[in-house]
Parts: sequence; C-alpha cells; structure tokens
Amino acid sequence: MEAQSKPPRRRSLMLGNFVHSETREQLGFLLDAAIAVDERGKIVDMDNGSDDVKTAKKQLLCRLGWDEHDLDVYACRRGQFFFPGFVDTHVHAAQYPIVGVFGETSLLDWLDKHVFPCEQRFADDKVARQVYTACVRRTLAHGTTTAAYYATTHVAATKSLADICLGLGQRAFIGRVCMDRDLGPAALRDPSTRESLERSDEVTRYINGRDAQDRLVRPILTPRFALSCTRKVMSGLDERHREHELPIQTHMSESPREVEDVARLYPEAGSYAKVYDEHGLLTASTILGHCIHLSEGEARLVGERRAKVSHCPCSNSALGSGEARPFDPGGGQAGGPRQQTPGDEGPGRGGAQTGQPLGRAGLVSGHERYLATRGGAKVVGLEHTVGGFQVGMDWDAQLVGLHVVGGGGEGEHKDSGNVDLFEWDLCNWKTIVAKWVYNGDDRNTKMVWVKGRRVHKR
Amino acid sequence: MEAQSKPPRRRSLMLGNFVHSETREQLGFLLDAAIAVDERGKIVDMDNGSDDVKTAKKQLLCRLGWDEHDLDVYACRRGQFFFPGFVDTHVHAAQYPIVGVFGETSLLDWLDKHVFPCEQRFADDKVARQVYTACVRRTLAHGTTTAAYYATTHVAATKSLADICLGLGQRAFIGRVCMDRDLGPAALRDPSTRESLERSDEVTRYINGRDAQDRLVRPILTPRFALSCTRKVMSGLDERHREHELPIQTHMSESPREVEDVARLYPEAGSYAKVYDEHGLLTASTILGHCIHLSEGEARLVGERRAKVSHCPCSNSALGSGEARPFDPGGGQAGGPRQQTPGDEGPGRGGAQTGQPLGRAGLVSGHERYLATRGGAKVVGLEHTVGGFQVGMDWDAQLVGLHVVGGGGEGEHKDSGNVDLFEWDLCNWKTIVAKWVYNGDDRNTKMVWVKGRRVHKR
Repeated sequence: MEAQSKPPRRRSLMLGNFVHSETREQLGFLLDAAIAVDERGKIVDMDNGSDDVKTAKKQLLCRLGWDEHDLDVYACRRGQFFFPGFVDTHVHAAQYPIVGVFGETSLLDWLDKHVFPCEQRFADDKVARQVYTACVRRTLAHGTTTAAYYATTHVAATKSLADICLGLGQRAFIGRVCMDRDLGPAALRDPSTRESLERSDEVTRYINGRDAQDRLVRPILTPRFALSCTRKVMSGLDERHREHELPIQTHMSESPREVEDVARLYPEAGSYAKVYDEHGLLTASTILGHCIHLSEGEARLVGERRAKVSHCPCSNSALGSGEARPFDPGGGQAGGPRQQTPGDEGPGRGGAQTGQPLGRAGLVSGHERYLATRGGAKVVGLEHTVGGFQVGMDWDAQLVGLHVVGGGGEGEHKDSGNVDLFEWDLCNWKTIVAKWVYNGDDRNTKMVWVKGRRVHKR
Repeated sequence: MEAQSKPPRRRSLMLGNFVHSETREQLGFLLDAAIAVDERGKIVDMDNGSDDVKTAKKQLLCRLGWDEHDLDVYACRRGQFFFPGFVDTHVHAAQYPIVGVFGETSLLDWLDKHVFPCEQRFADDKVARQVYTACVRRTLAHGTTTAAYYATTHVAATKSLADICLGLGQRAFIGRVCMDRDLGPAALRDPSTRESLERSDEVTRYINGRDAQDRLVRPILTPRFALSCTRKVMSGLDERHREHELPIQTHMSESPREVEDVARLYPEAGSYAKVYDEHGLLTASTILGHCIHLSEGEARLVGERRAKVSHCPCSNSALGSGEARPFDPGGGQAGGPRQQTPGDEGPGRGGAQTGQPLGRAGLVSGHERYLATRGGAKVVGLEHTVGGFQVGMDWDAQLVGLHVVGGGGEGEHKDSGNVDLFEWDLCNWKTIVAKWVYNGDDRNTKMVWVKGRRVHKR
C-alpha cells in the first residue's frame, strides 16, 4: 500500500471506461471515453462520442490543444473502470483503534467502556499521529476521497489530523470535539465552556491558515451531542457558524436511552431536535449522525431546516441502536430528513419509524452507489465539486480493477481481491458494477485521486 | 493465493495461541500452548498448562515420544493465532459467478433471470471445472474447511465438483440438484423422475467410489425445493436416505410468494414443512435452507424432527426474502428449529415470526464465531469431528494473522489486510478476536488445514 501525495500541478488524461451515478436509480456509463483534468485538478473536457479510446483521446487533445508529452496519462486495462471517490460523512478518526470492539454493550455503556478510554490516549500527540496516519491511509486505500472527521477534544491531536489529511491528500472536514458537560472522564472533557470555545477557535484558525488557498481541509464545528454540551457552548458554536460560515456536525437520536436522557436534561425543549434548533445548530450545513429515533415532528423540523442526516448503518447494527427510517425513493433533493450517507442499508422490514411492513429492504439495491458518491457530496455541501464525472467538477476518483478468472479457475495474484469476473461478464457493465459493490474491497481500488492529485496506488 | 493439497501422512505440531468457541457465549483461549496432530490428521494430545511455548512443546514431544525432525512444526508469530476452520452449511457452488448479482429482483424472478441461465452453463464440463475450481479455492482461502454444496442437475459437472474438492482438500458434501417439475428451463431440468433418481444414484456411487476410505467428500441428496420436485422424486430420495444413510439438503420457506405457491401446489399437505415431512425428508440429517416464513406449528415440527436450519442471512438480505426468527440464547442443542449457520445475524428488531420487539439485534455479538464453527459442524452432523480444538477431533483449522501497526501508522505490506492491531491491543485476546471478526478478510487467513493436511497458504 503506497499512500503519498504527488505534486498536483500537472495535467492528466484519463482513458477508458467511466461509471458514475446519474440519479439515485440510474448509473451512467461512459465507455471508451476520455476525460481531461487540468493542473488545478478540474475536469475541463471529456469525449464520450468516439468509437474507441484512441479516437477519443485524439479528439480531446486536439480540442484542448494539449501535448501528450506534458500529461500524465492513465488508461484502463481489462476489468478496470473509473468511479467517483467515496464521500464518508461521519468518521470518528479517534475511534479507529476500536473498530469492531463493542462486545455486549449499547451506546452509552460503549462510550464509557471503550470510546472514552480510547479517546483519552490522544492527549499524547504521538499516539494521535500514529492512529490518524493509519486511519487516513486506510480510508484513502478504500477509495474515500472526502471524509467528515470527528477527532477528540485535544487541540494538538486535532491539528495533527488536519496535517495528516493535507499531507496524504485527502479532502476532509476536521472537527475538534466539544464536550463541556460532565459526561465521560474529566481528563477527556473540556475544562470549561470558555476553553471549549477557545480550543475550537484555535483549531479553526490553524486549519484555515494551513490551507487557505486550496481548502482541501476545512474545519467543522463539532459539539459531540446534547448530553455532553452545555447550552452556552452550543450558542457559542452557533455564533461561529453564522460569523464564519462554518459547517456543523453532531449526533442525534442514536439510541433510546440517549433520547430519554436528553428529554430529562432539556425538559423544556420538547424534543431532541428542538434542543439543537433552539441553539441555532439545525442548519442547511449541519450533518446529524444517526437520527434513528425521530418523531414525525422532529423529522419534519430537520427537513424544514434542510439539515443533513448521516445514518451510519454499520455502527447502528453493531451497537443495536436501531434502524433508520427508509430512504425516500421519490426524493431527489439535497438534504431533508431522508438524505442518507454512504453504505446505508435502510431499515429492513418493519421500520420502527413508520410501523409499516416494507416488504423489502428499505434501500433499493443500487442506491448505495449514489449515496456513497453524489449523496455524500450533498451532505457535506460539495455536490457541485465532487461525486460525478462532469466538466467543472474536481477529479476525485478511483480506478477500480477486477480480476478476470482464467480458464483453469485460478487466481491471478495475491492482490487481486475477491471479485471474480468470468469472460461472459465482460460485456455486461451492470453485472460488473454489481459484483464489485457486493464482493469488492480495497484490493480493487488500484489508484485514487483527489483534486487531480494521485494520492494512492497499489 | 496458493491452494494445493500436501501429502497428509506426516505428523504436525502446532505451537502458540489457540482460540475456539467453548459454548455459544464463551470463547476458549489456549495461550502458549501446543497441539499434536498425527498422520491421520487427528488431534492426539495437547499441552495448555506450561508457562511458555517452548516448555509446552517439550512436554508434548516427551509424552508422545515424537522426534521433532519427523514433524511439520507451525508456530504463531506476533499477532497470530489458530482458529477452527469455518463450516459453511449452504453454498451454491454453481451460483459463484453471480454472487452479488440480483438487481431489483426477489427470489422467484431472480431464479428465472439470473440463477437458471447461469446454471445452464454447467452442461459444459469445462465451465464447471473453471467455476468450481475458483469457488473451492476461494472458500478455502477464506478459511472454509467444510462446505455443503449445491451443484446443478448435471452429472458430469457434479462429479467434477467432487473431484475438485478432493484434489484441493476441502471437506465437502456434494449435492446433485434434483428438479423434475416444470419450473425453470427444460434444458436445466431432469427430463423425468426416473432419470432424476438415476442421475443422483450415479453421482452417489461415483463419490463413494472416489473417497471410500477418508470420506472427506460425501454425497448429499438434494431436492432443490418443493416447487421443482414431484412427490415421486421426494419419495425416491427418502428411500435412498433410509437405505444408505445419506444426508439431505433442500430449501424451505425462503420467500412469501414461494410459500403461497407451495400451498397451491400441495393443498392437502397443510403446510410447507408437512410437504417434506410427508415424504420423509424432514430428518435429523436434513439441512433446511432459509426457513424464514415458518408458522409456529412448522417450527415445532422441524424441531421435533431435529432437522437443521441454515439461514443464509446475506442472501436473505440481498433478495429481501425476510429475516429469520431469533437464535435461541437458552438452547444448546444440536439442531432444532433455532440451530443456525455461520455468519447469521439474526432477525433484528420486530422479528416477523414472534411479532415481539427484541430491543437488540437477535444474534448476540460473538455468537457468530460459534455458529461458523461448532454450530455449523452440528448442522452437517460432524460435531464430534470438527469445530474445536479437542483431543480426538480432526485438525481442521486456520492460522489467523493480524497486522500490528508501526509507530508511524504505516501499513506493513500489501497483503496485510484491514485489521490493524495497536501495541496496547496485544494483551487483550477478546479485542483481538473481535477486531478480526469485524474487519478481517481472507488476507488474515494465512494457512488452512483440513484433516491435518495444509490446503492453503498465502
């Protein structure tokens, strides 16, 4: 696994097959096509009308007046195609060491038993650099070109996360976690509301100073959740949101016990969603993690505010938190209560929110490709920049390579992964993509680019 | 990926850490231990009481009077442990080319649109050898030491599957699929009831002749399901079951439309389970695939007959077939309606069968390790032979290796997989196993043995 950034200031030409989501339902296939990426990392032209790649390439170079020798050229081989990079709208980078460790717990016990002890380690910046480097390399290797990260309360460690994303070339939103209430160990919490806000400001200034021009890495305001934040800190973050147009991320209604505790702590608010809304945190640039146990009124409020929802189905299923309400198959809007995030699998049968049997898994097969790219881009407010192959968008993409089984049924080499294509699959692009989505892993992600820079290769 | 069988007739000594399921709830850890495997592939002795591996080894060799130079010795390195091989109780080897291909279909459409066209290819034995070789290598590489396979109706292709398992060293039950009713394309079906039974007999004789001594590969009677089998063929298979003590595998109650169709086709039987029971197919050595939509009466009947259930949760979720009733946390019996298979994730909230909210995912975290080994072994009737590390059992095992992250957060090498252990994890075996189960893949399965023969290495 090589994960390093290259100097970005060179034009590239991408040749071969390009697959992306045109809508939630529809994949778009640009076959035997060519895409030109300029020195800023932007898609400046594409050719999709030629009979073969050679012609497409010639057409494009001719139109742009580009010289082939000044370019990096990447061409698909058999079983390969380009796909947009994934957008992960909710990643706890500091919990990377405990992925898969939850035992018999549910949310609040798990925080006490596993999460808080793990996050305390980040007081040591050496640990932070080790874990964050592993986490960013790993997510890049899986094709995640954009991530919205939660770090911890620690200032130095959070700055390190920003540095690492910048160094490795991942597009990222970096959140220093605010927690000024008495939940969790004192050593992890912010010692006061004032310091909580000051620490966040320090991280914001640092990140903006490091990457003012490209804005590859940006700060995001991160009140952990209503149980670990005071009213004052929430209002303070709202001021910063309005003044500096900073996005916000937090958790909401992940588990029933948490919802009860919020109702007890904020009895006058009327609902969990209203706690955030009262403090100005329910906005069109807010990412709400989980949102499983919402009343109809809360769902409506979230929709009215055009806040975004990141459902995190793997976490929900691991912790037994519940299943989120279904994806709205009719909707096509950015945001609203039904906007979902990459990999979401919908609620399955008997969704807790509607009380109605759904008959089928709530997420129609195939939609996950949209959610992982264009859907995620909407959630983080980058829908005009990443998530598809269009002139004017940035080249945030991955080269996917699948193994074609030989006549003897043998594997190609160690790193070829779990997707086996047979000769008869090769003309069927829907099958190829379906097999990749179901059986693929990081071994199939051969190269990754962010903003035109190649940031991973295997 | 190297998957080849080695001559079995050599003793082995396994040194290091051994993890297996003692009960559904409890993992057993044999740390710094040694296990001796004789030339038949049986565990003949073990040492788990010594302070270190060196002493354990010395003790064992001394007790057995074995000479180290006549042995193959395998020793765990840092981040490695031995784990029992997996038992997969329901694998359609002939559907290997369409894993992940289901689109917007549900069960019966999917059979028509994807499954039957794929299975027709197996009329060509060259295709069969190619696909079955890829499938058996792949499952071995993932640590599956025992598999209950469905082939197709084709005799030559089914014999090839048996040959390939035998050659590559996988323990397997090989089922030639019987389908003598007019469901599916004529070219795929058995032309008559008589031929359906004769073809199955031919495959049974072939397999028994090929592997009479070791019985690594065995025949299994395989009526596809009630909709593709006549009463006559079911009765014929029952005769063979009683006469030759052959096990049986079939599908039951996988989707609502299938259940309705069975009720229409067998109106006098009273239920799907009774259709099989009337024909003698509901036995203690029957594996029933899916069993999602059972009435209480049917579940009771299945339990009384001590038939085994293989739930196939990934398939169920992909096809939207439904979710099976929960695992019975109190039970510890082999078989019964609540016996489940590897990887099953239980029914989640609001299980359709009980109508009661379960509060948590039905399968308690950790149980999947049991189901994938000892539980699966019970389903295929091999609970005294495989599934755990005990004297008298066969050495069907895998060596698991996890990556330990360096100080700089860097990956070790291309093939190290997705599980990252940190230094502080290394003393915590529950964490190590949890991280493997959640994040691991075939890259973590470094070696695989069946009956003492090493059959895979990477």
